[in-house]
Amino acid sequence: MKTAVIGLGLIGGSMAIDLRKAGFASALIGVDKSAPNCKRALERGLVDEIADLEDAVSRVDLVITAIPVNVIKPVILKVLDHISDGAVVLDTGSTKSSICKAIANHPRRNQFIAAHPLAGTENSGPDAAFSGLFTQKNNIICEKEKSSAHALQVAADVFAALEMRTIFMDPVEHDKHVAYVSHLSHVSAFLLGQTVLDIEKDEKNIFNLAGSGFASTVRLAKSSPDMWAPIFEQNAEYLSQALLEYIMHLQKFQYHLMKRDVNELHRIMTSADHNPKGLEGMDVKQKPSQLVENKT
Amino acid sequence: MKTAVIGLGLIGGSMAIDLRKAGFASALIGVDKSAPNCKRALERGLVDEIADLEDAVSRVDLVITAIPVNVIKPVILKVLDHISDGAVVLDTGSTKSSICKAIANHPRRNQFIAAHPLAGTENSGPDAAFSGLFTQKNNIICEKEKSSAHALQVAADVFAALEMRTIFMDPVEHDKHVAYVSHLSHVSAFLLGQTVLDIEKDEKNIFNLAGSGFASTVRLAKSSPDMWAPIFEQNAEYLSQALLEYIMHLQKFQYHLMKRDVNELHRIMTSADHNPKGLEGMDVKQKPSQLVENKT
Repeated sequence: MKTAVIGLGLIGGSMAIDLRKAGFASALIGVDKSAPNCKRALERGLVDEIADLEDAVSRVDLVITAIPVNVIKPVILKVLDHISDGAVVLDTGSTKSSICKAIANHPRRNQFIAAHPLAGTENSGPDAAFSGLFTQKNNIICEKEKSSAHALQVAADVFAALEMRTIFMDPVEHDKHVAYVSHLSHVSAFLLGQTVLDIEKDEKNIFNLAGSGFASTVRLAKSSPDMWAPIFEQNAEYLSQALLEYIMHLQKFQYHLMKRDVNELHRIMTSADHNPKGLEGMDVKQKPSQLVENKT
Repeated sequence: MKTAVIGLGLIGGSMAIDLRKAGFASALIGVDKSAPNCKRALERGLVDEIADLEDAVSRVDLVITAIPVNVIKPVILKVLDHISDGAVVLDTGSTKSSICKAIANHPRRNQFIAAHPLAGTENSGPDAAFSGLFTQKNNIICEKEKSSAHALQVAADVFAALEMRTIFMDPVEHDKHVAYVSHLSHVSAFLLGQTVLDIEKDEKNIFNLAGSGFASTVRLAKSSPDMWAPIFEQNAEYLSQALLEYIMHLQKFQYHLMKRDVNELHRIMTSADHNPKGLEGMDVKQKPSQLVENKT
C-alpha cells in the first residue's frame, strides 16, 4: 500500500521501518517541515522520497500523521481536503478528544482513524526510529463507529503488521486514562530530575551516587519537551487532577515519615503493589483479529 | 578468603556469587534467620554451608552483612564481638549515619567497613540474586579514616572483584545524597503506583493503557517494603526534605498547567534535562585502584 508519513521522528520513522519490513508499505513518501529530518530520513531509508504535504497525500492510499499534538489540527484538516476518495488517514497523537472534536463534522470524517499506539522512548527525531518499537504493545482506537469499514480494515492491517493489540475507547475516557498511566509518569520523571538537579548545584558529587533506580525513574525526563509540553497542555484538566492526587499521596507519605510511623509507611508501600500483575500494564483482553471483527 | 554472608537475599546472594566467581571467596558460610532462605541459598549454591551467626563469624576472614537497616545494629555489634582479630566486617546497608554512630566506640571499630554498594533491583530473596548486579556500579565507603589499612585493603579487593568504583564520603553527607538520588525515586515510584491503583478501582481497563514509560517509572514500586520502610524511617529527615522539594516542583508544574502556560511547562522540562550526562548518574572520578592508594 502506498503510504505517506507526516512527521519523520521516533513514531513516524519506526512505523515506516516496520510497515515496509512487514511488506505492508510498498512505497513510502515522507513529509516533515524540518529539512535536516527529511535528509536523515532519506539517508536512513525510512522513506523513499520527500514531498510537500499536498502532493504526497494526493498520491497515496494511507497517510500516517506523527507530529506534535499542538500542530495536528490544521495538518489533519489539510490532509483530509487533499486525499483521494479511498484513502485513509491514521493519526497517532497522544491526546484524542481535541482532534476528534476538530474533525467531527468534516465530510471525510469516516476516512479518518483516531489511534494512539502506546509506545515510545525518551529519544526523538529520525535517528531515534527503530524496528520493533511497537511489537507486542497496545494501541487505542477512538470513535471507531465514525470510521468506515474500509478505514478500520486498513488500520487493522497496519496494527497487525506492527504486531500491536488494539483496544477501543471513547476519546474523553482515553485522555483521562493516559493522564494517569502515561502523562503523570512523564511529569513525575521530569520533576524528579529537576529536584535532584536543584540540589546538585551545591553538591557536586550527587550524581556519583545515582543507582540504577534513579536512572530508570528519570529516564523519561530525557523525552522531548517539544512533544510533551503540548500533550500536557491539551490534557491539562485530567493531568492536573492526576497530579493533585499524586501530590496528596506524597504529602500523606511525608506526614507519616515525619512521625516515624514505619508501620504506616510499610502499609502504604505494600498496597502500592497489592496487584503486581496490574503494574505490568499488559493484561490485554483484545487480540488484533478482534479489530477486524469489530469493523463497522 | 573464607567469607560469611549474613542475609542471603538479593545483595548478599549476588555478592556471594560474584566473589566466588572472581576467586576471591574460597569458602562461603551463609547466615539468615529465615529457614527457607537458607534452604534456597544452599540449593542455588550461593553458599557452601549454613551456620549460626556466632559460629560462622568466628571461622572466617571476612563477614559481609546484607540485612534490613532496622535490624543491623545489634547484629553488627554481635559480629564484632565474635570475629577473630584479623577479620574484617563489611556492611552494605543503604543508610550509614546510624550504624557508624552505633559502633563508633567499639574496640574493634577499625575492623569495620561502612560501605554502600549502589546496586539493586525490585526483586528480593535468594532467588533474586544474580551475577553481575554490581558490575560497573558505584560503591560508597564512609569514615575510611576509622578503618584499618588491612580492612581497607580487603574492601578494595572485594570491590575490585565485584568491578565496582568506590567513592569516599562522610556518613551524614551520604545519607543526605541518597535521600535525593535513591530514596526519593523509590517513594515516587511507590506513590505513582498507588495513585494509578486508586483510579483503577473504578476504571477496570486502565492498565491496558500503560505504556513502557509507566512500567519503567513504577518498576521500583515492586521493591520490598520490608527493606525500604526501615531505610525511609532511618533517613526520615533528609528524605522528608527531598519530598517537600519534589512536592513543591509538582505544585508549581500543576499551577502552570492549570494556566495552560505551555511556554513555562516547556521551560521546566527543558531545565530538567539541561545536563543529560548528569542524569546518567555515572560520571565517577574515582577508580577502584584509588581505594587502595588511599588506604590509611
